[in-house]
Amino acid sequence: MTRSWWGWGNVEDAVRGAELDALLTRARALAPGELTDHEPPDVASLGIPAARLSPPSSLAELCSADPADRAAHAHGKAFRDVARNLLGDLPHVPDLVARPRDERDVVDLLDWCSRDRVAAIPYGGGSSVVGGIEPRFEDGRPAVTVDLTRLDRVLEVDPVSRAARIQAGVLGPHLEDQLRPHGLTLRHFPQSFEFSTLGGWLATRAGGHFATLSTHIDDLVESMRVVTPSGVAESRRLPGSGAGPSPDRLFLGSEGALGIITEAWMRLRERPRRRAKAAVRFADYAAAVAATRAVAQSGLHPANCRLLDAAEALVNAGVAVDGGVLVLAFESADHPVRASLERALELCRDHGGETPDEPTDSGTDSDTASDTWRSSFLRMPYQRDALARHALVVETFETACTWDGFDRLHRTVTGAARDAIRDVAGLGAMTAAKRGSWHPAPRGSGGRPPASYGVVTCRFSHVYPDGPAPYFTVYAPGRWGAMVAQWDGIKTAVSEAIAAHGGTITHHHAVGRDHRPWYDRQRPGPFGAALTAAKAVLDPAGVLNPGVLVPAP
Amino acid sequence: MTRSWWGWGNVEDAVRGAELDALLTRARALAPGELTDHEPPDVASLGIPAARLSPPSSLAELCSADPADRAAHAHGKAFRDVARNLLGDLPHVPDLVARPRDERDVVDLLDWCSRDRVAAIPYGGGSSVVGGIEPRFEDGRPAVTVDLTRLDRVLEVDPVSRAARIQAGVLGPHLEDQLRPHGLTLRHFPQSFEFSTLGGWLATRAGGHFATLSTHIDDLVESMRVVTPSGVAESRRLPGSGAGPSPDRLFLGSEGALGIITEAWMRLRERPRRRAKAAVRFADYAAAVAATRAVAQSGLHPANCRLLDAAEALVNAGVAVDGGVLVLAFESADHPVRASLERALELCRDHGGETPDEPTDSGTDSDTASDTWRSSFLRMPYQRDALARHALVVETFETACTWDGFDRLHRTVTGAARDAIRDVAGLGAMTAAKRGSWHPAPRGSGGRPPASYGVVTCRFSHVYPDGPAPYFTVYAPGRWGAMVAQWDGIKTAVSEAIAAHGGTITHHHAVGRDHRPWYDRQRPGPFGAALTAAKAVLDPAGVLNPGVLVPAP
Repeated sequence: MTRSWWGWGNVEDAVRGAELDALLTRARALAPGELTDHEPPDVASLGIPAARLSPPSSLAELCSADPADRAAHAHGKAFRDVARNLLGDLPHVPDLVARPRDERDVVDLLDWCSRDRVAAIPYGGGSSVVGGIEPRFEDGRPAVTVDLTRLDRVLEVDPVSRAARIQAGVLGPHLEDQLRPHGLTLRHFPQSFEFSTLGGWLATRAGGHFATLSTHIDDLVESMRVVTPSGVAESRRLPGSGAGPSPDRLFLGSEGALGIITEAWMRLRERPRRRAKAAVRFADYAAAVAATRAVAQSGLHPANCRLLDAAEALVNAGVAVDGGVLVLAFESADHPVRASLERALELCRDHGGETPDEPTDSGTDSDTASDTWRSSFLRMPYQRDALARHALVVETFETACTWDGFDRLHRTVTGAARDAIRDVAGLGAMTAAKRGSWHPAPRGSGGRPPASYGVVTCRFSHVYPDGPAPYFTVYAPGRWGAMVAQWDGIKTAVSEAIAAHGGTITHHHAVGRDHRPWYDRQRPGPFGAALTAAKAVLDPAGVLNPGVLVPAP
Repeated sequence: MTRSWWGWGNVEDAVRGAELDALLTRARALAPGELTDHEPPDVASLGIPAARLSPPSSLAELCSADPADRAAHAHGKAFRDVARNLLGDLPHVPDLVARPRDERDVVDLLDWCSRDRVAAIPYGGGSSVVGGIEPRFEDGRPAVTVDLTRLDRVLEVDPVSRAARIQAGVLGPHLEDQLRPHGLTLRHFPQSFEFSTLGGWLATRAGGHFATLSTHIDDLVESMRVVTPSGVAESRRLPGSGAGPSPDRLFLGSEGALGIITEAWMRLRERPRRRAKAAVRFADYAAAVAATRAVAQSGLHPANCRLLDAAEALVNAGVAVDGGVLVLAFESADHPVRASLERALELCRDHGGETPDEPTDSGTDSDTASDTWRSSFLRMPYQRDALARHALVVETFETACTWDGFDRLHRTVTGAARDAIRDVAGLGAMTAAKRGSWHPAPRGSGGRPPASYGVVTCRFSHVYPDGPAPYFTVYAPGRWGAMVAQWDGIKTAVSEAIAAHGGTITHHHAVGRDHRPWYDRQRPGPFGAALTAAKAVLDPAGVLNPGVLVPAP
């Protein structure tokens, strides 16, 4: 397999053949003119400038100055990144890619960077969608990307406490491969699972498999080891503690700005043996939301509890409903879960939910669920790339809010996205019939004529007793060459709507550089000052991922 | 009701009459000589020195310089505090007790303290057992205790998201009284419930009702409002977020050293309607621990899962067993819980557990459970005070560790406590018969002759999939006048044993001043530097609870 330098995942897994034909058939309903495929540029033709610095000889063998290698580490995997790669627009490329073999190398690299004021960008799988690993600094200083994927081993397993000490650079599948012989699993499956690392999950507070309870990787951490320019911070392995503010919680979400996570003790579990799942249809979205809230507040703790709105159900599940579809699943390694599912379905029926199909049980640890997941959820980024090559803008926005504010936030964000799509794309030639195949009739939006350009869908990625984490996907016709500006316009409009209605600027995609304007407003001022002070003492030379989370010093 | 100035709770609720007779009968088995009651001193006779400062006139009406008021705010409620009060030993008394009426008053008080370099000690219910609210500073500067109990209202209830905005100074019962009309409850019941406040729980990461899942108050927080000398930090109401390191998690556990919490949005729930509980007996402690671990790792999420060792079962539950007793309870506001209990009991039987009594169901929201809890759990601090008046040393120590290390930690801590009791008390005259009525025959402890002085009991206050939170209680004969030194000796020995075996110095009692030596060793160095830097920027004059968590500047 060959990793794509410009887009998602492996080159060999790109969308092609029948999958591409089907995708483009659907895309033609959205795009007004002919769809033209734009081949990615040859990376050798991009004129990547030579590195502006050389490593000390002691570190030379860790470092690559190869232009293709550096180009592949220049951007994350947001639509914005892929579009710029396709256009050959790479103004910020790291000068070197360093691949430490062990923690000692990480320490030495940070020592060198601090001494010479070289920016150091921690890099796991490179799947950031928020500009988190892009060497884009105001002062244009030289940068070394510290690619941690050589630190890829499970070092120790404690089967009694069900925990393992794991190096931070391990990619998802390789991590699970190493745990499988022990009968244990981390069971953290973000969409980026194949191409993201434990350290990346920890540094960005990644959201995972479970829709309730352990929604973020934060909850699975027992202790962490972090290399900072001021020393190594290692917390004690503890199942719980109340000794002052949690040290781990400072480094969780620090996005490489406070240190480089080298390893962590992670909480594991047995693989589930009992499963039960069902899909509930609703004629009314408000009723569907109320049902989802009832399940979230029931204490039943479903593993999956994903409400798809009508647009999302149509586009990504092929189901035509007026209200929405709630996908429910329960799982356990210990006991039957059918009664929990039945109670959840009862709550749904109380709110008008219909379950046309019998709920399905799965008593064995079959791979059906994960196969399904692989074939749809995991294909989305590849499909996004294929659409980007055809000048369609596809992006996701995610947040969380309390239940009392969700209806307003959902309407406002959806409306803002539609307006922005119209503003940036100026499409007027679409026929209602074509639109209809992508999107159900838009509902009233406060007297304004309904915005009917593009598609905006919403699903809940996670739910809490006090609110959901809505995940929006926007599909919009773009113009080749203008797609980044179009993306920026939509991103700004959606982010403003989220911020204005009390949502978080990110539930699990992190802040990076792209979310900074809204994060800065969301973050309590004194906490920002505390974080800046913490960074100053941990990273006195200000070399760690400058500009992420806090202003570059 | 009159709050005791020297001991726990209300004067009217002190142990007396038949309860005292029964307690002293048991205590006589432990103490070699006659038990003598020592009346607490008259606070007016203690010669509390006059306040060394006057408040500015604008704040004068908030401030009390009354010696009795100040004496009552000088110490927390550890045995060490009660013993010193009984001995009239109050070297560190706040100069003033200030009672702000609103957040504006809190801001004004901190402004004044920062300007005049007066120490400000945030004070909720004053139930600290770690020296957290004692104005004990190396530089002996003047101190104002900021008693927040006037901020006692529930300001807003969101019944949809099930959350409420609550002032931080509200005591537990008054908080629940205000939530009850809404059919909601915080359901956070630390042992100090009656005499501790929401703000105190947040500042110390208090442990509560639930033995699994939401073990700490941390998990119930939606957002917080904190007054710091550098401004007010208010986080956004969010059910979940991944936007950088959590702001709330910096202030949770900050113990008044970073700011004064004035209010918080807290997650609530409906009162439970379904309950099921059982007690399981074990002939072997290792098997009992294994059964408890199986339940903790099952995903059944019991509300209670408290393993009492043989000594704890005998002393506090009146049950004679060789191994231990596991107390299990499940509760729900939504669905039956009997099947969960049955599965947990099955796991216990797999490990040799016996359930002599039928499990009991409770389909209604009866007060039986809380009545039982009030009459035993809530009486313990009152009984502790009665024993202290009779020169018995009674104290609790708590920690958490991973399952793989628990057996060693349990043996070591228990052994260290017994050795320390002998070392500090020098008792040799106890008869085996007398000892026996307090403690079952000690098990082998590695070839050493068993230490047979005093009583050391252990229960789990909370359990996690990766480890338990053991809670030790030590009863030892003391000598009037030497009890504080005796306590210090035992405390040091137990804390060293906990630290040496990987436990946390506190699972939910906080750090304060008394746990500092061990906390300083436990806390990762770079995190300590970050915390100190955060304090310096939030509290530039260094007036907030000096010496707690980090060294006084």
